[in-house]
Amino acid sequence: MQGKYRALWLNDDNFLEVIDQTKLPFEYKTKVLKTTDEVVEAIKNMTVRGAGVIGSVAAFGIYIACMEVKNYEALKEKALLIRESRPTAVNLMWAVDKMMEFLKNSTSLLSEAKKYAIELNDAEVKESQKIASYGADIIEDILKQKAKTKINILTHCNAGWLAVIDEGTALAPIYEAQKRGIDVHVWVDETRPRNQGASLTAWELTQSNVSHTIIADNTGGHLMQAGEVDMVIVGADRVSANGDVANKIGTYLKALAAKDNDVPFYVAIPASTFDFDIRDGVKDIPIELRSEDEVKYIRGVDSDGVVREVLITPKDSPAINYGFDVTPARLVTGLITNKGVCEADFDKIQEKFK
Amino acid sequence: MQGKYRALWLNDDNFLEVIDQTKLPFEYKTKVLKTTDEVVEAIKNMTVRGAGVIGSVAAFGIYIACMEVKNYEALKEKALLIRESRPTAVNLMWAVDKMMEFLKNSTSLLSEAKKYAIELNDAEVKESQKIASYGADIIEDILKQKAKTKINILTHCNAGWLAVIDEGTALAPIYEAQKRGIDVHVWVDETRPRNQGASLTAWELTQSNVSHTIIADNTGGHLMQAGEVDMVIVGADRVSANGDVANKIGTYLKALAAKDNDVPFYVAIPASTFDFDIRDGVKDIPIELRSEDEVKYIRGVDSDGVVREVLITPKDSPAINYGFDVTPARLVTGLITNKGVCEADFDKIQEKFK
Repeated sequence: MQGKYRALWLNDDNFLEVIDQTKLPFEYKTKVLKTTDEVVEAIKNMTVRGAGVIGSVAAFGIYIACMEVKNYEALKEKALLIRESRPTAVNLMWAVDKMMEFLKNSTSLLSEAKKYAIELNDAEVKESQKIASYGADIIEDILKQKAKTKINILTHCNAGWLAVIDEGTALAPIYEAQKRGIDVHVWVDETRPRNQGASLTAWELTQSNVSHTIIADNTGGHLMQAGEVDMVIVGADRVSANGDVANKIGTYLKALAAKDNDVPFYVAIPASTFDFDIRDGVKDIPIELRSEDEVKYIRGVDSDGVVREVLITPKDSPAINYGFDVTPARLVTGLITNKGVCEADFDKIQEKFK
Repeated sequence: MQGKYRALWLNDDNFLEVIDQTKLPFEYKTKVLKTTDEVVEAIKNMTVRGAGVIGSVAAFGIYIACMEVKNYEALKEKALLIRESRPTAVNLMWAVDKMMEFLKNSTSLLSEAKKYAIELNDAEVKESQKIASYGADIIEDILKQKAKTKINILTHCNAGWLAVIDEGTALAPIYEAQKRGIDVHVWVDETRPRNQGASLTAWELTQSNVSHTIIADNTGGHLMQAGEVDMVIVGADRVSANGDVANKIGTYLKALAAKDNDVPFYVAIPASTFDFDIRDGVKDIPIELRSEDEVKYIRGVDSDGVVREVLITPKDSPAINYGFDVTPARLVTGLITNKGVCEADFDKIQEKFK
């Protein structure tokens, strides 16, 4: 994938170019990142977002930083700035640490950093392709079981190629199914309050010509009752050792509805998403509390094409904004990973991944 | 309650005055309805909404119509216009039919219509007060059981005094609890796509000084897991003979989360909400399909105080907009009605209401 079909790339001048995700779906704009400060700022202000993409940007960020320093000691300071640009992003820290480990004894920082960042990136792309393939196999199985030719998949938030290179996690099996000639339709939860579904996922699927329909987050339960959903696939930010899944707020509600209507509920993740230190995800995964303004204000484009932010609540009513919730393992049909599909079960996870 | 604390009233000139609910929460404006056409238009364009309030407006609408006609035959034509202003509103038809029945042999249309409309209205107010009282008793019981002094109640959509005079259905017990000196806090689901929670319920609670916090519809599950919700109270548009509850889309998801976390889930309704002709609500209650534009566009106020509508999705992505869902009776702890509290069970409902 190239150009607008990838979240980031090295441009012809060998700088890092990224899609400005804060402008989507209203404008397609890219940003060229030429300095460490620009990389840090792009991560902080969510020009780039999504666990995998942030990791990739961080890896290339170390390469960009190498343009500004003479030696490894100086690079360490720059690396720290990138590492701390978003405190809860596990992939970000992992990528920075990996790059710094690679470069420890380097005699040619800039060229080696470029090489390692590309390698790291390519490795991620390969893992994403494995998720795509294992997931598409499940889609084929479900169609076979139901003797249907068209599959309706519900997803929440954005876990496509804007989030994880090259094709995402939750959306990767969907793109792969499309390549295999399967008739796929996606129910896109708008994913309040930040609307990553209605903006990013819908835009991504449009670019890739995947049939889809945006729905309010409230709608999935009714669709499942009505038999309009054949499976759910979501991504995850963290999965505990027992298979509890931390993902965008609202995921838990969809998992409950899936269980209540016998709809298979899958979570697509790279194996790096497991947090083996946490045994009980519902109890122990910390939930990020974000600004109430994300609930109270919304961004859209007016009839003149101007992007505007508007207040949608009474000015003085308080709001609260939890970023994630935790879906208990008992509601998860399976985890689709780059190492194969696994039950959300402590022993099975240990056996396969530890 | 008077003035801005009531959804509608007869003003000093004996015309019908209503709060313009399309302007809330950004502007408090009222509209005076002086003709049948104005009444019909106010119902059609949702200047007034909410089952109970539409019924009341229809009753007073017949009184307004009497100003324009000389006899009962001519009134019938006007009544038909009002009756057909919103086809699915059961209360609207009921109120028009009731008024026309009253006036059948009237010799003084205008004065009798006014008297009957006020009587009908007052009767509704009394029923709402009974719901308030039965519901507040449950709130007191829950606090006693938990040995707590503060109750956290989650509600969905708007079923307060903007929807049903005088104090609503779902919110009536909350107002009553506040009057009894109970420390109440309300989690207000924003209720996408029309945002009746974030706009109307939050505004109502602000006017009545009830402590509340707006949340994205995705958030309730996490709050229940975290023990932050002591009970759920919602309204309903229709309840089947077996106790299945049709209410604003998304209600079902909250009921599932309540069940999963042992949170009592109550539905507050006037007894007129039962539809005894429907035995299986999940299968047989028809679900209204509304315009996709309600999902794709949203109204808010910009930084200059101008109310604007903005597009929040890619222009070409389709959306689908089901207005309601049906919560199966097995998820409902109890029905709080003007005739007392009842289990959501076919036999119990028959016994009490038929």
